Amino acid sequence: MSNAVLTPEQVLQQLQWRYATKKFDPTKKIPESVWKTLEQSLVLSPSSFGLQPWKFFVVRNLEIRQQLLEHSLGQTAVVEASHLVVLAIKKDLSASDVDDYIKRMAEVQQVSVENLEGFGNVVKGFLQKPTLNEDQWATKQTYIALGFFMTCAAMLGIDTLPMEGFIPAKYDEVLDLAAKGYSSVVLCPAGYRADDDKYASKPKVRYPTESVVDYID
Amino acid sequence: MSNAVLTPEQVLQQLQWRYATKKFDPTKKIPESVWKTLEQSLVLSPSSFGLQPWKFFVVRNLEIRQQLLEHSLGQTAVVEASHLVVLAIKKDLSASDVDDYIKRMAEVQQVSVENLEGFGNVVKGFLQKPTLNEDQWATKQTYIALGFFMTCAAMLGIDTLPMEGFIPAKYDEVLDLAAKGYSSVVLCPAGYRADDDKYASKPKVRYPTESVVDYID
Repeated sequence: MSNAVLTPEQVLQQLQWRYATKKFDPTKKIPESVWKTLEQSLVLSPSSFGLQPWKFFVVRNLEIRQQLLEHSLGQTAVVEASHLVVLAIKKDLSASDVDDYIKRMAEVQQVSVENLEGFGNVVKGFLQKPTLNEDQWATKQTYIALGFFMTCAAMLGIDTLPMEGFIPAKYDEVLDLAAKGYSSVVLCPAGYRADDDKYASKPKVRYPTESVVDYID
Repeated sequence: MSNAVLTPEQVLQQLQWRYATKKFDPTKKIPESVWKTLEQSLVLSPSSFGLQPWKFFVVRNLEIRQQLLEHSLGQTAVVEASHLVVLAIKKDLSASDVDDYIKRMAEVQQVSVENLEGFGNVVKGFLQKPTLNEDQWATKQTYIALGFFMTCAAMLGIDTLPMEGFIPAKYDEVLDLAAKGYSSVVLCPAGYRADDDKYASKPKVRYPTESVVDYID
């Protein structure tokens, strides 16, 4: 098909090439042109209603990364990877976040804020439902961004490690996220696998396709 | 870098090409060779501990898709898209799911189950933490798979629509998921945009990069 940039075989090959990289080569840095696109894979990720209830903290300061390592169950990727991304949610989403988004939408699409009021009220109504936990909802959106980031990385030959194994409250403290209205939910170190990472050659453990994909005919 | 299959510009171009497709062309079907790779993007998605707490239901039966449309807030993509994927979590994860996984791991990596007991106990301990909501945790993992699926689709020139706007309890009922131990959490119709989908040409609304990406130097 004309809009494809890869063959199915190439996509499959990169999905197989990707693995959760436990040991990064600390001497190899992601070139800026590649990084800028990875950054955009986060920015351009979809989210429900388009609300973007997130922020991505890229920790470059090595002293701070050393501090974070203390709250990362010993996973040295936090300091050794070229880049460390802390994916965070905007806490306690409310009507004012919807107003901000509507304002941005009006700006980008060159329509009036009044024209978007109906849509804004739908989103506000959604956020006010008593059964909704705003933080959990924002977290799910942020995991889509994690998926986009990791997949684009694989296509660009960049290794990643999705990490839930850290102490969010401590990360929030070290990075001063609470004061900014955010809370860390998942991490993704990115860079290049070390030559001696023994996990690189282990076969991927997946259930057989027929047991996780079910066709309803 | 030698492991890349795309340039940063190509990745960016596809991320920009992608949009939440509201109107699919019902006459265009995803070729089987492309679909098989999209299917693998779900199967090969990463999950915490590698546990794969999910199942992907691909609804091909059009009568059933018509039934599901009644519980989809009128979003006709559910019937018009080439493929409809219902991403579902395994409900109430427990120690026996860990045992299943360890068994599979032993098989794929050709080690003994006994060798993996330590790892298995870590995962069991994690699932038993009183602060953990197993279903929420499984849902987050499933959203990574959604991100992988959508990104790979974009690289293959396939349109998608991530959909939270449906009634999970009704979907579970129509597809008889509860009896199978699963629950639907998010949908993703996939196929080809209709020529007259007016959303295709609307500019993407995103906050400026500098307001969602924060460098900590």
